[in-house]
This record gives sequence, structure tokens and C-alpha cells, in this order.
Amino acid sequence: MAKAPVLTPQADDFPRWYQDLINKAELADNGPVRGTMVIRPYGYGLWERMQQGMDARIKQAGAQNAYFPLFIPQSYLTREAEHVEGFAPELAVVTHAGGKELEEPVVVRPTSETIINEYFSKWVQSYRDLPLLINQWANVVRWEMRPRLFLRTSEFLWQEGHTAHATQEDARDYAARIHREVYEGFMTDVLAMDVVPGRKTAKERFAGAINTLTLEGMMGDGKALQLGTSHELGQNFAKAFHTQYLSADGEQEYVWQTSWGSTTRMIGALVMMHGDDNGLRVPPRLAHVQVVVLAIKGDDEVVAKVREVGERLKAVGLRVVVDDRTDTPFGRRAIDWELKGVPARVEIGPRDLEAGTAMLARRIPGGKEPVALDALAELLPKLLEEDQAQLLRESHERRVSRTVDVATVGEAAEAAATGWARIPWADLGVAGEAKLAEQGVTVRCLVGEDGGVPDADDAPGALAIVARAY
Amino acid sequence: MAKAPVLTPQADDFPRWYQDLINKAELADNGPVRGTMVIRPYGYGLWERMQQGMDARIKQAGAQNAYFPLFIPQSYLTREAEHVEGFAPELAVVTHAGGKELEEPVVVRPTSETIINEYFSKWVQSYRDLPLLINQWANVVRWEMRPRLFLRTSEFLWQEGHTAHATQEDARDYAARIHREVYEGFMTDVLAMDVVPGRKTAKERFAGAINTLTLEGMMGDGKALQLGTSHELGQNFAKAFHTQYLSADGEQEYVWQTSWGSTTRMIGALVMMHGDDNGLRVPPRLAHVQVVVLAIKGDDEVVAKVREVGERLKAVGLRVVVDDRTDTPFGRRAIDWELKGVPARVEIGPRDLEAGTAMLARRIPGGKEPVALDALAELLPKLLEEDQAQLLRESHERRVSRTVDVATVGEAAEAAATGWARIPWADLGVAGEAKLAEQGVTVRCLVGEDGGVPDADDAPGALAIVARAY
Repeated sequence: MAKAPVLTPQADDFPRWYQDLINKAELADNGPVRGTMVIRPYGYGLWERMQQGMDARIKQAGAQNAYFPLFIPQSYLTREAEHVEGFAPELAVVTHAGGKELEEPVVVRPTSETIINEYFSKWVQSYRDLPLLINQWANVVRWEMRPRLFLRTSEFLWQEGHTAHATQEDARDYAARIHREVYEGFMTDVLAMDVVPGRKTAKERFAGAINTLTLEGMMGDGKALQLGTSHELGQNFAKAFHTQYLSADGEQEYVWQTSWGSTTRMIGALVMMHGDDNGLRVPPRLAHVQVVVLAIKGDDEVVAKVREVGERLKAVGLRVVVDDRTDTPFGRRAIDWELKGVPARVEIGPRDLEAGTAMLARRIPGGKEPVALDALAELLPKLLEEDQAQLLRESHERRVSRTVDVATVGEAAEAAATGWARIPWADLGVAGEAKLAEQGVTVRCLVGEDGGVPDADDAPGALAIVARAY
Repeated sequence: MAKAPVLTPQADDFPRWYQDLINKAELADNGPVRGTMVIRPYGYGLWERMQQGMDARIKQAGAQNAYFPLFIPQSYLTREAEHVEGFAPELAVVTHAGGKELEEPVVVRPTSETIINEYFSKWVQSYRDLPLLINQWANVVRWEMRPRLFLRTSEFLWQEGHTAHATQEDARDYAARIHREVYEGFMTDVLAMDVVPGRKTAKERFAGAINTLTLEGMMGDGKALQLGTSHELGQNFAKAFHTQYLSADGEQEYVWQTSWGSTTRMIGALVMMHGDDNGLRVPPRLAHVQVVVLAIKGDDEVVAKVREVGERLKAVGLRVVVDDRTDTPFGRRAIDWELKGVPARVEIGPRDLEAGTAMLARRIPGGKEPVALDALAELLPKLLEEDQAQLLRESHERRVSRTVDVATVGEAAEAAATGWARIPWADLGVAGEAKLAEQGVTVRCLVGEDGGVPDADDAPGALAIVARAY
């Protein structure tokens, strides 16, 4: 008799599988206010590792962290016309504070371009102050009608970078640098996610930007998810907030700007890209728990041994948890660690002690085999790097095998039912994009024939990646 | 002719000196919404170092990080009567979101006991789930009528710990452990701040707590500042939110709880405790910039040398900035680093190159002397540890010399004009405390004769520390 599956199988109902996994792996809960989210310790541990890895790359790119207020005067939002039009429907508004009605309502930041420009205007005086490269880690609020944990939440956590440059070229280069070195680099090297770098069409651009660069990932069900965007803002906000500098030639000039963000949505992507019917599979370079050493029974010698092995594995730099909670049945604990996607489980029981071995269960390739206890410290780091590579390879193969080249809008819509379609932008165009939108299909990004990012929507040879998206 | 001072001297106007310093050292700016604050990169760098140091201690104490929503249903606040009474006047309320009026207004969290208890009630089932030790790094909002940067801001950044325990004793011990190992330990060892651990009187307790432990620091003007509190919540929130567990005996029991927080206010304390008329003095163990290596002139050889010296100092683990911005006059840059309180300045000009020396300016003891370039890497770490010790010693000596033992309410009020008074709580009592309050003087905390923390307000020998406070 087959055991009832712990999760709804992906093939039966992918959205339900996702919800089950988030819940049973203890990643997050729904908050009491519609669309908000409680990130539980295991889920937050993933976010902390993402923060550390991204923060190091952001600093490497020369940006410094700062913190701007949560509350923005409503009037700021209205200064950049496209920006307010884009965000107005999603705003949360504080009308009362300190026991009184406010004279001017304040909005809870949906993003911080406006308030940051107010300060850039004060801080930037001359060309010597440029480039000004700022990042902040913060929560933002965008009221969400169809919330889904990690993917679309009314409040989410993110980093948002904001920079000012003397020339358009410098701003463009910096947005491209963040797109490639910070976002694509981190997602590929650490998250083991195959992502496609591209350019958004005018329809999909950030409200207030002149160009948006994106990274798009294919999820386990063939849909797309946008992961990290970098915007060239041109001089739109500079003009709205009078952010000017004195050039070397003694002229007052408007700065050229960028902004760029990545969010807790990356946790949702991790689940939907690497998860399987048994739960999450966490890439070892990201994992805050790379190895769990489990005592099968509450025998004193076994407990002493799992602790000793745990210490030895920590000593070689692995991130290890020792699970000696033997008042909970072993089987339940093993399933729990499998759900949580810990890459390696080292299981030790009384019989293993005699043999000087442990059972090593590997979450990513799957399977179990006995391994000599003395060999673990040398073996595990190598196996974890293999696992890391396997996840990236799997996600790449999925994307390649489920992307088809098509020639018509009809074919593109059909392909988007199960995967992605690629179609020359010259053939699709704004009209084709509008037709696809009627069927819930969007142009995720434009890419060059050579895999590069086109300089403009009408760059020769630009291809549109077309898909359904989260 | 004496130069105009960069800052208003402390002795002339301490609050003005504080504002000048925050502004000129580029720590923070006022936000556009009343009471909010922009934390600039140099100030935020201090906060990042505080976060890292505190976070490691919090994890060492067994707590895990998580994240709870910014928005709390208004009804949650009202479930614990003292709690809502304490916070109601400071709440910011969102009444509109997503383009509509909300059915139930939501408050922006002033602290998270209520929403966290809602989830603890779900997560805690049996005694095996206890203790549950959670921390979060977050922003909170308490509407502020008399804002002052870092000390009282309508939005501030903090960590808030929330724990649930099976017994009152376990909760009490944990609150005491956080108070001593995390807060006092960090403030003493890293911030070089002399702080007094004590117990709040009933009047000064956190709204909803049965006991509040505090750390009080004496600022440069003799006033007190509360720095980090740990609360025993008893079963107040557990009863309001039905947070129960099944005991080993099979009984449903309410959990016993703690909460504890420390905030960006620590940056204000750093300024007011260690600052002088030339600016901030950052304790070397905290400093994100411990050493700045300055090129006096834009000579190629000099610039090459400062970079080389910078690399050598980084190689021994120092946190170093190389300042080769020689298009800005050297004197202005030197004053700027002095304002920012960087502990060591290594100044190199053309004449130093020949002699193989640099001028070493030490911010904490003051003074400048030539040092052989080759000696710096070995010398600086030792000098920085001396500087760290000096700051702690100075703050200790100030507190001791400006604290007087008194016997009457009148004497206590008089002493509080310039420093702290210590008076037996048995002599002062609730009535004396009320009289002092009329004169703007508060009981900062109760301490034991032996320097320990009294178990109860009426513990024999308890002394009240009485002061004016920020």
C-alpha cells in the first residue's frame, strides 16, 4: 500500500503543491492583514543568506547602504507622472497618527525613488559628488489583490539601489553592471537558477523608467517569474526633484539615474525552480543548513557520535545542524528535513557505530548509501558542489527543452500553455504583444540573437521571450 | 585669531552640539514627514556593525530570526489592556489601501507582541516546542511629538526578541541572560559604553510587562539615556492570545514570555557618550572605518604609497579607507574624518616618503606623531585596543564622578540638574518618584547595593538611580 504523499504532487496541482510546500517546510504563513506574510525562521534563514551574498556583491559594485523613511508625503509621488500612475492603485495610506488626522496623508513606500531624490538633490552639488551609489534593505508595501506567499505579498522585503551619474552612458553602464554582476551572478552562482537576462518592452517597463533590464526564470510548471530588475531612469526623477550638479565646465546639469531591486520573491523562485514532490531542494551554496546529522535512536553513544560528527563537519566550514531530538520519531524528522530541502542528511544509529559508517542521504540527486564516518569531512564538500552544479544544469535543461521558436502570435500563445516561446520582436511588435495580453500571455523580455541584451526595442534581431507569468 | 569652531561647543549648548555633529559628520538628516529620519551611509555603517555584533550574540543565546508583518489589525492591540493604553497615543493608522477604505483600519507596528503571539499560539502545541526563541530586525513606528534624530524618531530601526517558555523561572532567566550577555556585553565590550544594569519601577515598565530590565547610560551632559530593555511579560499576552501548551503532565498551560529590544538610539548614545567638541569618536571595535590613510597631496608617488599602505593595513585585518581625493584640500578632509570620529588617521605627503614615515593622528587620545611606515601594521591594532579601553574608562569615570548619594527628594532633584543621584528606594518610594516627576526627573532604574539587579521593587537595600533623561 502506497503512503499518502506529504505534498500534493506537482503534476496534480502545481499551485497547491507550492502552498503545501511553503506551509509544511515552515517557510512562511499568511499574515492576518490580507496579503501580508510571516516569514518563519527556516524561510528567513534563506533570506539572510540571500542578503549576505547580495550585499557583498552590491558593495563590491561600489554602493553604500543607507536608510530612508517608510513614510513618503503623498505629494512626492505625484511629481513624476508615470510613476504615480503606476503605483497609485497599490498604495497604503496613513491618514491618522498620534491620535489626530494628518494634514497631509502619507503613503507607505511602494519604492523609494521619490523620497531618495529629495535627498540626492541636497547631497549632490558638483560633479565631484558623482556617481552617488546608494542601496537600502527595507520593507515596502504594494497592496495586492491576488496575494501568493513570497510571489505577490502586500508587504515584502527587498533591497533597492538608487544611483545618480554625470552622464547617461555612465548610468546605463551601471544598470547593466548590477544586472549582470550582482543579479545574474548571484542567481546563477549561488541560487543555481538558470535565468535569462533581457530588456523589458515599453509596456512592461518600471513606471518612470526609460529602460528596464530583467532576469526571467522558468518555474517547474513552465511559467515565467521576473527576478530582479535594473532600471535606467534617465532624467525623469532628476527633473521632477531638481537633482542637479555643477559640471566641470561650470554648468548646472541634471543627473542621470538608475534604480534596481530584488526581493523575497527569490525564495518563491527557489521553491518553484528546484522543488520536487518531496519538498524543497536548497542549493548548497545558499543553504543555511547544508548538512543535518541525525541520531536515529536516543542511545547515549549515538547521541555522542552525532554531536562529534557535527563538530567535525563544522570544523571544515560546513553549515551543520545536529538533530538529536530523539523524542520525535526518526521517520518524521527525516521527512521534515527532506521537505526543508537540506542537501545532505547523515543518519547514525547503533548499527552504524559498530561499522564506523553512516547512511548518507542526498536530497538533490536522491538516494542513500553507507559512507565511512571518517570520510565525510572530505567527501561532503565535493558532493555539495556536484549538487550545486546539478541544480543549475536541471534548471537550464528545463528552460531549453520547454522553449520553442515560433513565427506567429497564435503559435506563441499555444506554446505559452506549457512553456516559453521565442519569436522575432519585429514579427510580434506592440500589436502582437497586445493580442497576447488578452490571453494572459506577456512578453517577458527581449533578448539578442547572441544571448546579449538589445540596446533598444527595435534593435535588429531582437527576439521576444513570451510566456505566462507569476 | 582663533578659527571658528566647526561645531557649537558642548559647554555652550549640548543639544545644539549634538544636532551639529549629526549633521556635519553626515550621520543622518531629518525626513520630510515629521519625526522621520534619513540615515546616511556613514551613520548606517555604524548601524550595520551594531547589527552584526548584536545578531551574533542573539544567535549565541539560541534565538532565531524571523519576520512578522508591518501591519497589525487594530483589534489585536486592544486585547491586552495595558498594552493598548501605553501605545494608543503613538499609533500611525492606515485607513485606505489599494484605492479603497479598509473595513478594519490597520496600525503600523509600534512593537510586535500582539501579532507575534497570534502566531506563537499556532506554532506552540506541546512542551517540546518550548522554549520558542525568536528575534526580528525591523522598522517600527511610534508617532513622536518632540522628535530628535536617533533618540526619538517616529520611525526607528531595531531588533525585537520574543520568547515563550514553559515556566516563569525559565522566562525570567532568559530575560536576564539577554540583558546581561547580549545588551550589557555588547555595549560594554564593543560600544565602550559604561552602562548601569537595573530594574524599572512599576511606573516606568513596558506596557504589558510584569518586569522590565534596563541599561542606563550617562551622556556627556550628565543626563541619562535608556539603552536596551528586556521584559518579562508573565502570562499577560499568553492569556490575551490563548498561547497555551500541553505540558508533560498532559495539562493545557499558558506560556511565560519575554520580549526585548534595542534600537538605532544606540547611535545617538554613541555620539553623546563619546563625542567631543571636534566631533564623534568611534570605538575601534565598532568602527566600520578604523583607519583612514590620507594622501596630503596629489603627487603620483604619494597616491601610490597611500594605496600600498592601505592594502598592507587591510591585510592585517584592519577596516581601512584610502582617501586620495586630492582635488579636495587636505585640511578639509582631515577635519571631516575627525568629525566622523575615525580612530586613526595616517597622513602621508611628499616629505614623508623620503623619511619612510607618516604622521599618525589618533582621534581618541588626540595628538599626532611621526611613525615609521613599516611599523604601522604591527602598531595600529595595539593602539586601537588602547583607544577602546580609554573610551570605556572615560565613560565610567564620568558616571562615577557625576553620581552622588543623597537622602531626600530635594537633594535628588538638585543633583539631577548636573548628573545622577542615588537614593535608597525605601526612602524615595512611589510618592517620591511622583514628586520628582513633577520636576522632570525620573527614576531610571533600581539597582542592588552590590551592583546586582533587585528581584523586586521592594528588595531590601534597593537603590534608585535618579536623573533627567532623553
